[in-house]
Amino acid sequence: MKSYRVGIVGATGAVGQEMLNVLGNRNFPVKELRLFASARSAGKKIKFKGKDIVVEELTKEFYKGLDIALFSAGGNISKEFAPIAAQNGVVVIDNSSAFRMDDNVPLVVPEVNPEDIKKHKGIIANPNCSTIQMCVALWPIHKEFGIKRLLVSTYQAASGAGAKGMQELLDQTKAFVEGKEIPIDKFVHQLLFNVIPHIDEFTDNGFTKEELKMINETRKIFHDNEIKISATTVRVPVLRAHSESINLELEKKSTSKEIRELLRESEGVKVIDNPKNNEYPMPIDAAGTYATYVGRIRDDEVFENGISLWVVADQILKGAALNAVQIAELL
Amino acid sequence: MKSYRVGIVGATGAVGQEMLNVLGNRNFPVKELRLFASARSAGKKIKFKGKDIVVEELTKEFYKGLDIALFSAGGNISKEFAPIAAQNGVVVIDNSSAFRMDDNVPLVVPEVNPEDIKKHKGIIANPNCSTIQMCVALWPIHKEFGIKRLLVSTYQAASGAGAKGMQELLDQTKAFVEGKEIPIDKFVHQLLFNVIPHIDEFTDNGFTKEELKMINETRKIFHDNEIKISATTVRVPVLRAHSESINLELEKKSTSKEIRELLRESEGVKVIDNPKNNEYPMPIDAAGTYATYVGRIRDDEVFENGISLWVVADQILKGAALNAVQIAELL
Repeated sequence: MKSYRVGIVGATGAVGQEMLNVLGNRNFPVKELRLFASARSAGKKIKFKGKDIVVEELTKEFYKGLDIALFSAGGNISKEFAPIAAQNGVVVIDNSSAFRMDDNVPLVVPEVNPEDIKKHKGIIANPNCSTIQMCVALWPIHKEFGIKRLLVSTYQAASGAGAKGMQELLDQTKAFVEGKEIPIDKFVHQLLFNVIPHIDEFTDNGFTKEELKMINETRKIFHDNEIKISATTVRVPVLRAHSESINLELEKKSTSKEIRELLRESEGVKVIDNPKNNEYPMPIDAAGTYATYVGRIRDDEVFENGISLWVVADQILKGAALNAVQIAELL
Repeated sequence: MKSYRVGIVGATGAVGQEMLNVLGNRNFPVKELRLFASARSAGKKIKFKGKDIVVEELTKEFYKGLDIALFSAGGNISKEFAPIAAQNGVVVIDNSSAFRMDDNVPLVVPEVNPEDIKKHKGIIANPNCSTIQMCVALWPIHKEFGIKRLLVSTYQAASGAGAKGMQELLDQTKAFVEGKEIPIDKFVHQLLFNVIPHIDEFTDNGFTKEELKMINETRKIFHDNEIKISATTVRVPVLRAHSESINLELEKKSTSKEIRELLRESEGVKVIDNPKNNEYPMPIDAAGTYATYVGRIRDDEVFENGISLWVVADQILKGAALNAVQIAELL
């Protein structure tokens, strides 16, 4: 069995750490693992399969001796370093938004469009976290019944803003209980006991970049520019795992029963839909797991062929690290 | 100026307490105020305009000597005691769901359908909290542009489940920080750091009663059974004030600019829509205030005439106590 020399760029971040865990848990054939981060984190030791690996500073020669580089260090780092690696024969799987909408870069959710990987020219983009879980849940429905219209409102966890986001929510919680001033730094407003309808920057049309990512990336992944999509992305005081309330207008008539059965057979999806027994997907249960959970599937008269549902997944895993490693597995 | 003998049934609950505050703050012409609750709370003293009022046990003679009775003690209490009062000439304003869909009972949001109050036969129903704030925000739009389709996903605070719901979230927060077991009692699952897509009971079609209330009550309040409505109601770890992500398909072409200007002139609405300055409605700001806040108003290509927006209000005040007192003011 062939094994690979893998580099993780941004190894000390929330997603980088999970990339390491996922590589280990899924027994990815790693011949050599190298970890890169900023000068600040260089020298730090991180364990992989029981062995310490010393974090190296990211330099323009980092790619030497690598087969695959997993990037999760922000768009600017990707823009600067990913093309260097790609030009030198290293396959880059990039978790930033830098190349996602580039026509020369495949944007891949392995359960949806694995065949796009073949078209890569050195860089493959990992979609936005909220987009990935939505695509995993909706692709089987789109293939079978055709989605005409898709409306989504999200409930996104603090860790979507990285380890610091999660820490800020924990710090706010502690400060509240101790009667101290609530620290606000990573998020624009207090997140504890609040919801903030603002993720990433606002654009001129009133949508945030996060909302436009969900719209544009889904169309690219589905290879369908006809689907009408609306997204409202909202930060909620949850540590980990994003939830999504989704309404669909379908081309073909379907029933919630058919959709439920279809999704039960679908790759990467786990249906939890027994509401009378208080069973539906929740972030607290999804955190730390690999599946995309779907529940609250119901016929919805708001459209002639309407289906509404509720999707939850760990956005650091399926929404980032796991999806990237799945892409690497398909290479 | 005429003044009234007012009774509050359920005076010790979260909404009952706020009814007392709102009567005082708005200088409602109270000649006499009497407070009723279960035997357990009888004898307790509650201050109103500096004077102690002793809580009385609710009995079948409670209505004697009253002009108006504000009920907020749950559907079963309303079903048993409201008709007795109404038959004896007392006007009941009922905050429970018991009579809302009764054809003989007006369901009133003062900013929307004040004229319905005249048709009352002794009982006037106060709508569901999530419904009220949505109606205040959407009525001006419906009048001007006609709403064909309305899709809403909610972010509802713990206090929607009463004072005990709010206390449970606080208790869970304290237990988490102290490393103790998280107490779960009022809500079916842990609410801290979680979101629960389940408010009120599930019905056979997979919607919850809360979701059906938003659909059916809005149609009744707007006197329009043609509007197609979908609702997904979700509990979030917020202490007070509900948020709503709303997508509209309108009959007539409009722009977000027109909608913004329209809402700025509308009764009960406060527009906070300056996203580039991080200004949009949030529950933490709305808590304890009377207005219905609207922001994130944007043109949405998901529909030919599409508008999306974000609505927040204190559901104990505008969603319950304030709305009830406003109805009383109109009598």
